[in-house]
Amino acid sequence: MNLAAVNNLISKAEVLVEALPYMRAFAGKYFVVKYGGQAMVSEELMNSVVVDLILLKYIGIKPVLVHGGGKEVSEMMRQLGKKPQFIDGLRVTDDETMEIVEMVLMGKVNSHIVSLLNRQGGKAVGLSGRDGELLKARRKVLYKPNGSGKETVDLGRVGEIVRVNPELIHTVSDNGYIPVVSSIGSGPQGESLNINADHVAGELAAALQAEKLIILTDVEGIYRQTGTGIEFISEITGREARELIRTGGINGGMIPKVESCLQALDAGVNRIHIIDGRIEHSLLLEIFTDAGVGTMVTR
Amino acid sequence: MNLAAVNNLISKAEVLVEALPYMRAFAGKYFVVKYGGQAMVSEELMNSVVVDLILLKYIGIKPVLVHGGGKEVSEMMRQLGKKPQFIDGLRVTDDETMEIVEMVLMGKVNSHIVSLLNRQGGKAVGLSGRDGELLKARRKVLYKPNGSGKETVDLGRVGEIVRVNPELIHTVSDNGYIPVVSSIGSGPQGESLNINADHVAGELAAALQAEKLIILTDVEGIYRQTGTGIEFISEITGREARELIRTGGINGGMIPKVESCLQALDAGVNRIHIIDGRIEHSLLLEIFTDAGVGTMVTR
Amino acid sequence: MNLAAVNNLISKAEVLVEALPYMRAFAGKYFVVKYGGQAMVSEELMNSVVVDLILLKYIGIKPVLVHGGGKEVSEMMRQLGKKPQFIDGLRVTDDETMEIVEMVLMGKVNSHIVSLLNRQGGKAVGLSGRDGELLKARRKVLYKPNGSGKETVDLGRVGEIVRVNPELIHTVSDNGYIPVVSSIGSGPQGESLNINADHVAGELAAALQAEKLIILTDVEGIYRQTGTGIEFISEITGREARELIRTGGINGGMIPKVESCLQALDAGVNRIHIIDGRIEHSLLLEIFTDAGVGTMVTR
Amino acid sequence: MNLAAVNNLISKAEVLVEALPYMRAFAGKYFVVKYGGQAMVSEELMNSVVVDLILLKYIGIKPVLVHGGGKEVSEMMRQLGKKPQFIDGLRVTDDETMEIVEMVLMGKVNSHIVSLLNRQGGKAVGLSGRDGELLKARRKVLYKPNGSGKETVDLGRVGEIVRVNPELIHTVSDNGYIPVVSSIGSGPQGESLNINADHVAGELAAALQAEKLIILTDVEGIYRQTGTGIEFISEITGREARELIRTGGINGGMIPKVESCLQALDAGVNRIHIIDGRIEHSLLLEIFTDAGVGTMVTR
Amino acid sequence: MNLAAVNNLISKAEVLVEALPYMRAFAGKYFVVKYGGQAMVSEELMNSVVVDLILLKYIGIKPVLVHGGGKEVSEMMRQLGKKPQFIDGLRVTDDETMEIVEMVLMGKVNSHIVSLLNRQGGKAVGLSGRDGELLKARRKVLYKPNGSGKETVDLGRVGEIVRVNPELIHTVSDNGYIPVVSSIGSGPQGESLNINADHVAGELAAALQAEKLIILTDVEGIYRQTGTGIEFISEITGREARELIRTGGINGGMIPKVESCLQALDAGVNRIHIIDGRIEHSLLLEIFTDAGVGTMVTR
Amino acid sequence: MNLAAVNNLISKAEVLVEALPYMRAFAGKYFVVKYGGQAMVSEELMNSVVVDLILLKYIGIKPVLVHGGGKEVSEMMRQLGKKPQFIDGLRVTDDETMEIVEMVLMGKVNSHIVSLLNRQGGKAVGLSGRDGELLKARRKVLYKPNGSGKETVDLGRVGEIVRVNPELIHTVSDNGYIPVVSSIGSGPQGESLNINADHVAGELAAALQAEKLIILTDVEGIYRQTGTGIEFISEITGREARELIRTGGINGGMIPKVESCLQALDAGVNRIHIIDGRIEHSLLLEIFTDAGVGTMVTR
Repeated sequence: MNLAAVNNLISKAEVLVEALPYMRAFAGKYFVVKYGGQAMVSEELMNSVVVDLILLKYIGIKPVLVHGGGKEVSEMMRQLGKKPQFIDGLRVTDDETMEIVEMVLMGKVNSHIVSLLNRQGGKAVGLSGRDGELLKARRKVLYKPNGSGKETVDLGRVGEIVRVNPELIHTVSDNGYIPVVSSIGSGPQGESLNINADHVAGELAAALQAEKLIILTDVEGIYRQTGTGIEFISEITGREARELIRTGGINGGMIPKVESCLQALDAGVNRIHIIDGRIEHSLLLEIFTDAGVGTMVTR
Repeated sequence: MNLAAVNNLISKAEVLVEALPYMRAFAGKYFVVKYGGQAMVSEELMNSVVVDLILLKYIGIKPVLVHGGGKEVSEMMRQLGKKPQFIDGLRVTDDETMEIVEMVLMGKVNSHIVSLLNRQGGKAVGLSGRDGELLKARRKVLYKPNGSGKETVDLGRVGEIVRVNPELIHTVSDNGYIPVVSSIGSGPQGESLNINADHVAGELAAALQAEKLIILTDVEGIYRQTGTGIEFISEITGREARELIRTGGINGGMIPKVESCLQALDAGVNRIHIIDGRIEHSLLLEIFTDAGVGTMVTR
Repeated sequence: MNLAAVNNLISKAEVLVEALPYMRAFAGKYFVVKYGGQAMVSEELMNSVVVDLILLKYIGIKPVLVHGGGKEVSEMMRQLGKKPQFIDGLRVTDDETMEIVEMVLMGKVNSHIVSLLNRQGGKAVGLSGRDGELLKARRKVLYKPNGSGKETVDLGRVGEIVRVNPELIHTVSDNGYIPVVSSIGSGPQGESLNINADHVAGELAAALQAEKLIILTDVEGIYRQTGTGIEFISEITGREARELIRTGGINGGMIPKVESCLQALDAGVNRIHIIDGRIEHSLLLEIFTDAGVGTMVTR
Repeated sequence: MNLAAVNNLISKAEVLVEALPYMRAFAGKYFVVKYGGQAMVSEELMNSVVVDLILLKYIGIKPVLVHGGGKEVSEMMRQLGKKPQFIDGLRVTDDETMEIVEMVLMGKVNSHIVSLLNRQGGKAVGLSGRDGELLKARRKVLYKPNGSGKETVDLGRVGEIVRVNPELIHTVSDNGYIPVVSSIGSGPQGESLNINADHVAGELAAALQAEKLIILTDVEGIYRQTGTGIEFISEITGREARELIRTGGINGGMIPKVESCLQALDAGVNRIHIIDGRIEHSLLLEIFTDAGVGTMVTR
Repeated sequence: MNLAAVNNLISKAEVLVEALPYMRAFAGKYFVVKYGGQAMVSEELMNSVVVDLILLKYIGIKPVLVHGGGKEVSEMMRQLGKKPQFIDGLRVTDDETMEIVEMVLMGKVNSHIVSLLNRQGGKAVGLSGRDGELLKARRKVLYKPNGSGKETVDLGRVGEIVRVNPELIHTVSDNGYIPVVSSIGSGPQGESLNINADHVAGELAAALQAEKLIILTDVEGIYRQTGTGIEFISEITGREARELIRTGGINGGMIPKVESCLQALDAGVNRIHIIDGRIEHSLLLEIFTDAGVGTMVTR
Repeated sequence: MNLAAVNNLISKAEVLVEALPYMRAFAGKYFVVKYGGQAMVSEELMNSVVVDLILLKYIGIKPVLVHGGGKEVSEMMRQLGKKPQFIDGLRVTDDETMEIVEMVLMGKVNSHIVSLLNRQGGKAVGLSGRDGELLKARRKVLYKPNGSGKETVDLGRVGEIVRVNPELIHTVSDNGYIPVVSSIGSGPQGESLNINADHVAGELAAALQAEKLIILTDVEGIYRQTGTGIEFISEITGREARELIRTGGINGGMIPKVESCLQALDAGVNRIHIIDGRIEHSLLLEIFTDAGVGTMVTR
């Protein structure tokens, strides 16, 4: 080998060496990864996420993938002649819609991710929140102001989590599998309920005492409005985030993303990373390089 | 209590006592139950099957449920404007159809059974053959005679099993869950393949060294044609069954049922019971009473 | 099968189904069964009790049988030319009598029950309270009023329990055996002491944190005296029972039975069932049917 | 301390040191000790045996004690007005006698040994061969020559072992207890059978793959008849012993002792020691000193 | 055997019996033995210590040997042309000296003890405090009074323990090995530090919650000065020892020995024995005989 | 982040991804690494090796380091006024020399490597072949031709391995430690013997059924002599190597390196890699990149 080739190899090795302290720190810990939105469109990017998850598994980290699939649900609804309808960003979910949600999430999105993981050499198991009563939920009540006060709005089978039974995740994860979880809950009668995937990821992360919750999304992270323009935030506490929302520093489309982080903090998660799923291997970069990518939200 | 009440109670206890030798014999053994067809129509009968499975689990037997869902798939296809098409009883499965098969089996049939089991107090986990590469499959080649010889018929994504990886079933079952398996296989590239549910049940039973394979169906069992009419068969060997098919003693709609039993015998299963799922608690009756119900096929 | 036969079978299955919630509730729990008195006379009834115990064991309950054997002891004493003598219902037990007690309980009653259990397919182990120092006891002092105050009465080797060492029961029970325990304690010098079997059962139940203490006896349960006659009590608290004894509502031969229940409550047992051992399978009926039999005494 | 005291202490330590290689060799091995006959008469000698067994247990050896109790049985029979009767050294055992045998062995001899062991700080568990079907036996048929050939003699409930189920010994021994086994077997119907204690010890030793079978008796060991007198044998093979019996070198009361050794060799035991139970701590001396005591019979 | 021989054997057995209660009391406990000084000179005495340690191991005690080797270090220094230098009894340890200390302790003293243990049938593993960061240390600062106050004295690489990581001892000891530990610590940068072996033994004993710390030395134990002469102390509390030092009752060469005991008491050790390593098997005598040898220091 | 920074990060992640299939293949396997010679000179390179070993440990590989230290031994000998002497490349080792070998290897080289590993965050344990009788050896006999035939040459305490007892390596490695082994064996009397480190590495690799034996050396690998010059060999079988030695294709200083590989193949190792320890992270490069470095010798 000539010297250039050798030096090239050595710099490769140095990447592995740079990862060592992170391996040390994270061995045996759960990492809950929320995956969805635009990031899921390109097959190439999905493969990159999938490979990252398998690598985490190999070095002793316990990844758990949570996904939604709003776009695919709406598409199937249209194919079946139903019109998607939303109130405050929540899908109105009648029984027929719930059936479609469940078919699309479990039968299409989840099983697609499972097969990608398997194809790359991982061992994945697809789960819904109904399996082993993993996500026990109840119907979510939405209050809307009206003229004389507030009224409740019927969203149908939209749920919120009341208890996580994480045993199934432990069983599956401790036996070498990567759990892939659809954002479907088990209602009071065992009926399926449609739950927001960010919410599922936050609650699972809390119940598993996950080291990190990582939200793979289609933006670089969180931005704040300043007098002169926008500014990228690489680290922020929950308290600061709330203050920025109050004062308008965080606004528009950023608000729901930040709010799901705040909800996860409330559930007991210590560190949340919002990272750009459009960058190849962004998961590895976040975890194993000193630079980090995206925004970290801490208590 | 008056004497009649006491005697009634005693005869209840005697039923439990009658079950004792079977509990003793079957503790710790796998029972693979194929469930489908007409038997699955009535919610009440489904509940009866589900309760039986939970009871088996409680007394130390390891039940595994395998299901198909042909009727539901065809219905969804029609809703989506596609026309179901069959060759030799096998569904022609193009990519779009496969997507529908997977959505319906995993997102609808499987998740419905899981929720019934949970509602009755069991802990169920829904699995497809892709989870943990449980059912490794390849495309099935169908040969049809034509004028000059044979030609292969393209059925699309119809599969046959080449290897069962039963570890996931052991993991899930040993941790107290009842596995519910959809008849979907993982193809060479990890792509989903549509597999006949009887075939899945037979191969799983063989790989798990199951004590019994029980096929819940919508007939009483196997009948034979005699000179004077038809006659119910309560026990038959594989060899005898093959002979009866050859000589026309078994014919018509009975043939595919019997052939799936023969295939399971070939895979290594020792005892197959074809029983009538339309009788309430037929599963319990088969297992725990001296009388037995349905037809038993043995090597 | 004709319809009547099928319906008969179904009603059999429903008995099993009725038992399911109880299996669920009691799996892994200890049930201490005191067995003695008239109930032990008929070989057929003994077999019925024995089968019930084996069935409990099979479905994951941990039965422990405690027995005395007063009648058999008195008989052997008479054969050996000794006259049984009692003070306040307690057998005066000199050294020679103690030897007879031990021989009869361990060498006759206990070993007979063990062999019945084995013959029916259970795995039983006979134990006395001396094995592994299971029942550490001291001599019981009886105070009798006399003219000027109280005097102590020497009952010889009659004991009362001071400590239970339940490890041996755990060892034996967790390895698949049904422990059968004679009511003999280990005195301060390791010498054998004669202990009341109800007392042994209560203390063992408390030490094992048993789900239930079941006293198989030769009456239907507890009766109370009312103005117009006697009335069967199906459920009563300890406090109520004490009150009824005070006011004469419970009297005569009922008192010792109730007092041994009160003593077990004091030792820490939550539920005590006094049931009629003369009814076949009364143990199963008590545990697995909604009706229940006998009297339940609770805290 | 003065020099003499120090030297005295050092020679004490050297005894411990002399024992070291034996501890090393025997750790984790079973030693089956047959105890009976004259050796059991003196309470002091019994305590010496008991202390030796506890010491073995402490240093990691697994002792199992087997006992008979012929003398005590005969005594009790006489008390109950029955006359002991023997054919070829075997007790004729009718049902009533069997009841006495079982009462005396389990309720008197066994429980006495258990309490001695407990009193010295050991943890003992008394077992009969019926517990856990430890000793599965059948009725022994004795053939006696008569005028025209042979006739069978009915000894009643005298048994011979057909199978040892050693699991109960493993369970009890591995949990820190010393098993004390009465020589009673479980017949085809679970009924008790009276078995020779030497025979029980030999079969148990074989089934447990015991390192040694030690027979504590009331003679120094085996003697042979020579031309000039008798000679003590310190080591002999089975083959040599058979030859000596054939040629009259071993005769009289020595024969049954030697034959029970030969039977144990046939059952698969490698080393049998016949030692003098009248010497204090003869068990320890045999095991832990270079000199050894008594006669060793090897294959 | 003649009677004298038998009686001699019996008195041997009685030594074993005398040891029984100690075996019972100490099973599974750690014993840390500090070994060094004059006691280590004679090969015969070393063998006696080594045999004692193996015996402890066999009967279920967990011995850990700690050694220094000051004399051997000084000798090697002289061979290499360096002059040993001490301040307040502590060796001034420059880098070159530290290298010699480490070579001599690990490569000579430790490996010699390990091979003696192996040769006598033990399984020993030599460890330094750097292995698995067993003894985390920092440089010791010595303050010396000078004219105007105090000044610090640079002793070079002399250390004191700041944390014990006992996992490696547990791993090695639980797998049947006897750990032999050199008194070398791991400094802040992982560099080796020279630590007093008594100090190491005390800290290890505390971290292992050892039953006893035994210091094998070349005197009989601790003596006190009285008006008329010196008097041997067989038992003393820490408080009493401090008082005797203050009042001059303990003085001269006795003081450092006693102070290392006091330090061990402070670290949390309950019982320290200073015994005379020049007596053969003094370790066994201390542990297993009622007399005991040497001085016991307690809290 | 600008695009260049992102792309740089992505290529970092790709290095991790490239390593994934190797992690998968090697998880749970032993890798024995022989480390010595020039490669050990620079502190920087030693740190690079040490970091590589820790990384292997973190991703589930079980590294074992074997070292010699000839140069350091010769240096210390000279300091102590002894002249190193060699016959056929083997050090003549009298008792004094053996003492120096042991002190230098264990007290200096081994403990230095252990501290480097600890300082980088690994948990290392230094072992010699005497610990736990890891390397049982005998004196090596060297035969030299002389005028009339052959004579044996006395090399003193030079040994060759007769048995490896790998339990200690398993114990230490399975509990999270990296074993660092000095090339010292335990002779027939437990005395230390000086063994060639390549030989130790080969025998250990065979006994541990290591996936690979990696020899870190100060050349690029093996070269062959061709007609026109020398040529680097990247892969060669044992058979080919023997042939090349016979025909002179491999000659000079290459021969001993190749012969130690052949010896390891004979001992049962499947794959030996001779790699250049002067390249930073050459260990990682060999294991985790597709290119590989150095020469691989296979069966």
